Amino acid sequence: MPRIRVIVTLKPSLLDSAGRTVADSLVKLGYSELTTARIGKVIDLEVTSYDEARVKEMCDKLLANPVIEDYRIEGVIE
Amino acid sequence: MPRIRVIVTLKPSLLDSAGRTVADSLVKLGYSELTTARIGKVIDLEVTSYDEARVKEMCDKLLANPVIEDYRIEGVIE
Repeated sequence: MPRIRVIVTLKPSLLDSAGRTVADSLVKLGYSELTTARIGKVIDLEVTSYDEARVKEMCDKLLANPVIEDYRIEGVIE
Repeated sequence: MPRIRVIVTLKPSLLDSAGRTVADSLVKLGYSELTTARIGKVIDLEVTSYDEARVKEMCDKLLANPVIEDYRIEGVIE
């Protein structure tokens, strides 16, 4: 069965406070090469048949919040 | 500056309750081709210089919980 990967990220203009905390912690641990970290979601969908238009619909209706998030359908993985 | 993408997923043997809820909701919305959904994290790191060994260390120390999660360094994006 095909597995489809969708990446959902916060829009670049929005502050990602979780990412900011991670970045600050890593710099404190000595990784001074780090400038920013942003955290999003990866959603792997297993479907009996893959239709990109339907996966796009799933993203628009439920998987992503279009007000604050962008999404990208990466397609079939593995 | 290079942006490095890291994908953190729950180990396949563990129940992903958030993913389960998403899958149930999508099936209720009529997407009956969906069998499972699993939700992980995507972490985009912006670094002044990229050293994969150091990014691996960041994952081991802070970004992933090795008890319940797997991670994969996807490398430089864009």
